[in-house]
Amino acid sequence: MTLPAPLTGVVPPVCTPLTPDREVDVPSLIRLVDHLVEGGVHGLFVLGSSSEAAYLTDRHRRLVVETVVAHVGGQLPILAGAIDMTTPRVLDHVRYVTDAGADAVVVTAPFYTRTHPAEISRHYRLIASRSSVPVFAYDLPVSVHTKLSAELVLELAADGVLAGVKDSSGDEGGFRAVVMGARMDPAVSGFSVLTGSELVVDTALAMGADGAVPGLANVDPHGYVRLHRLCREGDWERARAEQERLCALFGMVHVGDRARMGGSSSGLGAFKAALYLRGVIACPVTAEPQVALSAGEVERVGKFLAATGLL
Amino acid sequence: MTLPAPLTGVVPPVCTPLTPDREVDVPSLIRLVDHLVEGGVHGLFVLGSSSEAAYLTDRHRRLVVETVVAHVGGQLPILAGAIDMTTPRVLDHVRYVTDAGADAVVVTAPFYTRTHPAEISRHYRLIASRSSVPVFAYDLPVSVHTKLSAELVLELAADGVLAGVKDSSGDEGGFRAVVMGARMDPAVSGFSVLTGSELVVDTALAMGADGAVPGLANVDPHGYVRLHRLCREGDWERARAEQERLCALFGMVHVGDRARMGGSSSGLGAFKAALYLRGVIACPVTAEPQVALSAGEVERVGKFLAATGLL
Amino acid sequence: MTLPAPLTGVVPPVCTPLTPDREVDVPSLIRLVDHLVEGGVHGLFVLGSSSEAAYLTDRHRRLVVETVVAHVGGQLPILAGAIDMTTPRVLDHVRYVTDAGADAVVVTAPFYTRTHPAEISRHYRLIASRSSVPVFAYDLPVSVHTKLSAELVLELAADGVLAGVKDSSGDEGGFRAVVMGARMDPAVSGFSVLTGSELVVDTALAMGADGAVPGLANVDPHGYVRLHRLCREGDWERARAEQERLCALFGMVHVGDRARMGGSSSGLGAFKAALYLRGVIACPVTAEPQVALSAGEVERVGKFLAATGLL
Amino acid sequence: MTLPAPLTGVVPPVCTPLTPDREVDVPSLIRLVDHLVEGGVHGLFVLGSSSEAAYLTDRHRRLVVETVVAHVGGQLPILAGAIDMTTPRVLDHVRYVTDAGADAVVVTAPFYTRTHPAEISRHYRLIASRSSVPVFAYDLPVSVHTKLSAELVLELAADGVLAGVKDSSGDEGGFRAVVMGARMDPAVSGFSVLTGSELVVDTALAMGADGAVPGLANVDPHGYVRLHRLCREGDWERARAEQERLCALFGMVHVGDRARMGGSSSGLGAFKAALYLRGVIACPVTAEPQVALSAGEVERVGKFLAATGLL
Repeated sequence: MTLPAPLTGVVPPVCTPLTPDREVDVPSLIRLVDHLVEGGVHGLFVLGSSSEAAYLTDRHRRLVVETVVAHVGGQLPILAGAIDMTTPRVLDHVRYVTDAGADAVVVTAPFYTRTHPAEISRHYRLIASRSSVPVFAYDLPVSVHTKLSAELVLELAADGVLAGVKDSSGDEGGFRAVVMGARMDPAVSGFSVLTGSELVVDTALAMGADGAVPGLANVDPHGYVRLHRLCREGDWERARAEQERLCALFGMVHVGDRARMGGSSSGLGAFKAALYLRGVIACPVTAEPQVALSAGEVERVGKFLAATGLL
Repeated sequence: MTLPAPLTGVVPPVCTPLTPDREVDVPSLIRLVDHLVEGGVHGLFVLGSSSEAAYLTDRHRRLVVETVVAHVGGQLPILAGAIDMTTPRVLDHVRYVTDAGADAVVVTAPFYTRTHPAEISRHYRLIASRSSVPVFAYDLPVSVHTKLSAELVLELAADGVLAGVKDSSGDEGGFRAVVMGARMDPAVSGFSVLTGSELVVDTALAMGADGAVPGLANVDPHGYVRLHRLCREGDWERARAEQERLCALFGMVHVGDRARMGGSSSGLGAFKAALYLRGVIACPVTAEPQVALSAGEVERVGKFLAATGLL
Repeated sequence: MTLPAPLTGVVPPVCTPLTPDREVDVPSLIRLVDHLVEGGVHGLFVLGSSSEAAYLTDRHRRLVVETVVAHVGGQLPILAGAIDMTTPRVLDHVRYVTDAGADAVVVTAPFYTRTHPAEISRHYRLIASRSSVPVFAYDLPVSVHTKLSAELVLELAADGVLAGVKDSSGDEGGFRAVVMGARMDPAVSGFSVLTGSELVVDTALAMGADGAVPGLANVDPHGYVRLHRLCREGDWERARAEQERLCALFGMVHVGDRARMGGSSSGLGAFKAALYLRGVIACPVTAEPQVALSAGEVERVGKFLAATGLL
Repeated sequence: MTLPAPLTGVVPPVCTPLTPDREVDVPSLIRLVDHLVEGGVHGLFVLGSSSEAAYLTDRHRRLVVETVVAHVGGQLPILAGAIDMTTPRVLDHVRYVTDAGADAVVVTAPFYTRTHPAEISRHYRLIASRSSVPVFAYDLPVSVHTKLSAELVLELAADGVLAGVKDSSGDEGGFRAVVMGARMDPAVSGFSVLTGSELVVDTALAMGADGAVPGLANVDPHGYVRLHRLCREGDWERARAEQERLCALFGMVHVGDRARMGGSSSGLGAFKAALYLRGVIACPVTAEPQVALSAGEVERVGKFLAATGLL
């Protein structure tokens, strides 16, 4: 389908359910997609960070995008991550996800290698020139170790290189500069500014953002869709209450004992445990070399669900 | 061939010559390998950072390792990088480089994703258990954004998980701790400690390191082989003079204007320009999205070669 | 005066006007304070980062706090920074600013030295136990290189150690966790959560923050007071328009050529140039070793003032 | 006394013994200085990081420098740290340490504030122009969060601004560039390049460094003086053995439980515990808010002393 311009609303980064032997669990993935669609989301983002894209082999990635496109393609816009270190490697991913039918690709700045704003600009220009679908920038300094400046994003938007940005940088000042810059420049009409935060969707929309890509929407799509609607209606008081419920739910990402595991193991482990406890996926396992949550930690995830009315 | 244990000497991380349209330039790669072998190096490391591994597609990477193994396999130990974000993706690379005949694989800690020492340990243990050849750890915090602790490296060495480490961390205290720890623990006999630095090979060998993996050895293999020999002979005065000549030569990595390009573009661009000026490779181009050196910058590379007797 | 609990509203971090030979320009400081008071601000914060506290000698610092307290003490709450590396040095500053009559002190975590959450907790507990006035935490990772966790701030609030926090971390998720935590815990009633951002005051207040400490309020106190009032009235649309005008004005901090100077020189230089152009202070000079703005850069500051109706 | 140019040899950064109520323990300080002088050191550096300068009030700092100058001034060169955030504050420290008789001052780049190479250059030029004694640069990125580039250090050396550098950056490549640059430029004859590392003194001297400023020399001055002598004699084999003994001793800095305390508490706590166990100082207490070593941790320090022949 043609991507709406701008893309708006709630676009969850879809988790990738795995079997106990770390293959893609296709039936669970389909159930998860149904759960999100029934929740009323406005698009799907596969192969992002919450999808454990960094842990999926190319074979796994292909299967994920093919499965999701086959199941809901045409019904909802489907964005696919093309997460890799540099231009030539990213282009390989762009090729197979667009062959599979993705409606847009989501691409970070180069990482692992030392880079430079001029090289980041070249990177996006080369990718856009060779992609058959729109390109979104993915600003994720915690992974990429570079921040996309508002200036660069707006320049690439004005030049028609980027169709939008998913901003997971946590830098609200820079985010606002992109929102304001995009609105004020007629050359970038249709550019989509999406927040990647779970915790400030209400204020991002209040600033004028087009939508949100919250990992936690896997667990509670209805909540985020409700939050989005309340913001669109200008009912900021109830929006804040809904956002605060979701903030409380988000607390689950800290259940993992940080002496035993890193932040991904804890956070993605919690999302998958919640989906498992809610009956959406068959197995809460995360990819190697992440460390599994203990039984007690999974139990604490359940308490977060119960406390916010989800179990 | 069976990898010597420990692996010692000069093991250059082999640059990957490209054609103007960014395909692997196989004849130039073969000439470069011959240049290194004639220089007397003790092994070859393909698909490392100086090889622009981060910029090479899987197809390019396969071609590189197959070409080099076919040309000199059996004659010299060939280590191959398996550079990717996490365990499952690294294992895919391990498979094809070992199928192609690499004698060992070189693997970083997980990157892009947030990680933890326990997960780094799991990562190496899983890879070693599934690799048919010895595994070297690649400690490169500038790219990976995690430092491998001496404690972890020595634990993995003692458990037979790691066969060696290439330390490009620039942390000489940590390096020394690994050298001393490896020497004092009979359980890790045969473990190979290699410095990735161009600038302190003499002092690394003086501390007891087994060898070096200097990117600059592409440009001047004879110099590093001579340096290694002088150190082995205990002729520290002449070793220092040779090392200082190589330090002066290394100055070429700064020729690129940093307002226009990043450190990789400048450094790898200089190495390739030097190989081009020395007549070893046909084209000095670097991979996308790196920025090319200007004519004036290439000329300055030539001056570094001339000043150190290489042109 | 007794500090309101919670302290609410707009509390500018007062710039420190200097003479051409870098002494405190007392008449200009008094004019600046009058300008802020007439603008309707709710308190004053002297000796913070926007006050160039890091550049002021102890003699200068004393003169600043004595001048401001003598001029408006009792009329408005006056908070004073006690910015130094560790507990004993901070306590020296606490002593003279409270002797001078400051109503509260503002203190960062230890810096320069390597630290730890347990030591940060000890630090604040020791200072609070020896301070005659309430203690605010100053969360400024760009300077301190440590982030105060929401968990630690709330624990210190619940224990009566901290009276409030000035959050200049730019981490809106963490900020929200403090706001929500403070509201939900009856033990911390009266705790004041202030944002240090210039750019998201509207959304911080929408989340439930008590007030703001924006450096740019030196230049346009009326604007921030208006913004605060609109937020309190729930007029979010006009609040956003006012905030966006202030965001545009804030663009002045980037006038300085970053090839020639750092971010402080550019940002604090712009604030002082604006105060000079608006006729509030006699001389725009910043402290050593900051680099002065050029005439052209000052002119660009004037354009920001003109474009937002201030000149 | 006039400072030798270059200053060479072992120049320990003198620990600051404290009483249980955190006053400077003058008799212990004098005993420590005697211990170092008897150990044969070539100079003393007071008010550095190992001296807990960041934790000492101005009154404490003055007392330290006055005590040490009065006790051994004229006998050995005495360098004094003037550690503060920016130029005006540093100049206040320069004044009282030179009034007290320090033979040179040691100064970092600006910290806490955001800075720039041009501002760092101005900083050192202003300080040198107003200091009555030579100025050494202190390169300590772990504290200052800026690295002094070899280029800047050599430029300031050539211009007569800096008399030397204490390099605690751990960047051996940059260190070597300074050593080589200083040797090759006749304009910088007399410039002193000192390593701040405990672990690579042998290799630093082998590269051509003038001396070392190792914190661990408080505990074992004889060891470092012996190491220095062996290096000067070119007896690299025995130098390495001595250095390795000192590396093993240095392991004491890790005795502190890092779940309970930071790196300074552990490292400086260990040095002081060792001095206490060796009978040099009366009390091993460290400054607030550092966390004390447990009895068991102190016992482990004793084992490090025993294992290296010091107890």
